Amino acid sequence: MKMLYEGKAKQVFLTDKEGEYIVHFKDDATAFNGVKKEKITGKGELNNAISSLIFEMLEKEGIKTHFIKKINSNDMLVKKVNILPLEVIIRNLSAGSLSKRLGLEEGIEFEEPVFELCYKRDDLADPIINDDHAVILGLASRVEIEQIKKETLKINELLKTFFRKANLRLIDFKIEYGRTDDGELLLADEVSPDTCRLWDIHTNEKMDKDRFRRDLGSVIEAYQEVLERIK
Amino acid sequence: MKMLYEGKAKQVFLTDKEGEYIVHFKDDATAFNGVKKEKITGKGELNNAISSLIFEMLEKEGIKTHFIKKINSNDMLVKKVNILPLEVIIRNLSAGSLSKRLGLEEGIEFEEPVFELCYKRDDLADPIINDDHAVILGLASRVEIEQIKKETLKINELLKTFFRKANLRLIDFKIEYGRTDDGELLLADEVSPDTCRLWDIHTNEKMDKDRFRRDLGSVIEAYQEVLERIK
Repeated sequence: MKMLYEGKAKQVFLTDKEGEYIVHFKDDATAFNGVKKEKITGKGELNNAISSLIFEMLEKEGIKTHFIKKINSNDMLVKKVNILPLEVIIRNLSAGSLSKRLGLEEGIEFEEPVFELCYKRDDLADPIINDDHAVILGLASRVEIEQIKKETLKINELLKTFFRKANLRLIDFKIEYGRTDDGELLLADEVSPDTCRLWDIHTNEKMDKDRFRRDLGSVIEAYQEVLERIK
Repeated sequence: MKMLYEGKAKQVFLTDKEGEYIVHFKDDATAFNGVKKEKITGKGELNNAISSLIFEMLEKEGIKTHFIKKINSNDMLVKKVNILPLEVIIRNLSAGSLSKRLGLEEGIEFEEPVFELCYKRDDLADPIINDDHAVILGLASRVEIEQIKKETLKINELLKTFFRKANLRLIDFKIEYGRTDDGELLLADEVSPDTCRLWDIHTNEKMDKDRFRRDLGSVIEAYQEVLERIK
């Protein structure tokens, strides 16, 4: 299979079928724009399983995604899209880079979800941008950004409910959108503990990539627990 | 006179009259969040003169400002306001921190003006924020931000025309708003070569604080030239 793209945690391959790609979930974990790196055996498999369940749920709820099906432990069949170089972020509570940047302690619940965009550019360390920047950089049109904002807020509500049933609190998450050849926007990339901050609803224990970022240990056990709870 | 506040380039004093303050323009120049510092004799006087002319022009054009009158070389009488901790920025062409952050060369003209907000917090190095952040930080209400955006775009058009007549191109500028005790928003702070990027319309020569930031020399001569041209 011809590899089209290799990212920090995933690879994308061509298939025999026009319009379909395979996403392969790797065991690599990276943080701080690639400065911290490690191999975590089993992470790829867990993220593929978790993402697949979530894409299925979202599709059922009317969200258009690139997901076709999970084909084996580490691989997912998806629709061909061109990924927009935008990290689309929703924050329900303060944490991580927002806390640091704005001088807010972690765990403050916002009255409304906070919507953020970052420009996916490793060499610039993925700078935070606003709608105007996205437009002048040609990353998305004004109409697409409004559509992305609306869709992402809807996804946030669906994910909050979904995780609440699993006794997990959705602190924040990052998603990416892709454009089909017809110009349709689809939710793409992945939705997993690599891309969502999830805290246990009772103990506030971190069940996500912060366990890796902050050397809290038991990374794989936390991801496994997330999968068990949402199954 | 009792000093209420001292900033990097100005001091604010109480007056005998309730509801009126005096702004004193200092000769201090600072850049890079205060890391670079210098005294530039005559800068305060020039910025007071330039700001006064600009506030007068904007008032005539229907913009509500804190400006009452210029009272002497370095002092301006203004209405009492509480300054919002927001740097409100418009960019017509790429330059400065935007170029650096987004990897764009300087001097690219945008199809539409780019609106930016920064959170005025020296200890956080004035981070760039979006509308949602401004709201959750309690810096301004959603309605105020919309009002600020609309007013600032109007000010941009007025300033562009004003400077064009002086053979200057308005690259970008930073303004600040204040709230009166009645909750009215007024344009406050200053509008000067300290806060506007101005390039000569024919030669693209920098006629603003970048002369200081980038050690280009002839800082005071450039400010003097701006004043002569807009008089």
